[in-house]
Amino acid sequence: MKGFVMKTLSDAFEHTLQDIYYAENQLVKALPKVEDSANGKKLKSAISEHLKETKGQVKTLEKVFKSIGKKPKGEKCDAIDGLIKETEGIMKEMKGEAKNAALLAACQAVEHYEIARYGTLREWAKVLGQSEAHDLLTEILDQEKAANSKLTNLAVSEINKG
Amino acid sequence: MKGFVMKTLSDAFEHTLQDIYYAENQLVKALPKVEDSANGKKLKSAISEHLKETKGQVKTLEKVFKSIGKKPKGEKCDAIDGLIKETEGIMKEMKGEAKNAALLAACQAVEHYEIARYGTLREWAKVLGQSEAHDLLTEILDQEKAANSKLTNLAVSEINKG
Repeated sequence: MKGFVMKTLSDAFEHTLQDIYYAENQLVKALPKVEDSANGKKLKSAISEHLKETKGQVKTLEKVFKSIGKKPKGEKCDAIDGLIKETEGIMKEMKGEAKNAALLAACQAVEHYEIARYGTLREWAKVLGQSEAHDLLTEILDQEKAANSKLTNLAVSEINKG
Repeated sequence: MKGFVMKTLSDAFEHTLQDIYYAENQLVKALPKVEDSANGKKLKSAISEHLKETKGQVKTLEKVFKSIGKKPKGEKCDAIDGLIKETEGIMKEMKGEAKNAALLAACQAVEHYEIARYGTLREWAKVLGQSEAHDLLTEILDQEKAANSKLTNLAVSEINKG
């Protein structure tokens, strides 16, 4: 957090944007390890594809910062740190079927976190009259929703096949 | 985590169940502080209502443990700890409009986390042939989805009114 009291919706918007910018950058670092640890072509390729998308989202977030006249800046986000720590636990303490299923589920939990954040940011951008930011955030939100659907389909068809 | 290598989907199921049991119990402790910190009747009452629901979910999870022949047990869940830590940061460093909007958004992030977890657990219960667990988890999943919709409506109508 910023070390001063945030009071307005605009403060909350900027802070949450910094949070998710930090989160996406942490995911860019974490996802290659998750890809390495996963078994099976389909899960590896889903993670690799999502890594590419995540790198694109970092760039899109930089455009959002620009659109509100701010420099891109990350602010430590405890939620994503916790989600990544949980994923590292899975890589360390699970094997085989359990590991693949749990890694996929962990990726879905991250997607859901992001969907919540971008849903909020997009709504706030609208209220704040930041239409360019609104459109850019909607673009990312739609990507996250599509990524989550792909993971769900993969979970149902491949991992959870019993 | 458990200190031994988990290999099967059944291991992953039991572990994730312990995670979410810990998470719901942490929320039972955290939500009264969030309610105290929130401003405005509608947000306070939404949080208070969700606290009641969360207590019910703890009981339902105990039935899920019973249905698979296990004793209820919580396992430290880094993701919920991170989400709660983030919420504590908001309570400390935000005021007024920013705080209310950000607290509501934090509650939505928690809901999304839970929706991801219960969606996974429910699917795994089906694959594992645990039909009672499947039905109980579906019941909680539906409650979480409804709670998230309520929070979204509240965010759109009350908090983000500009």
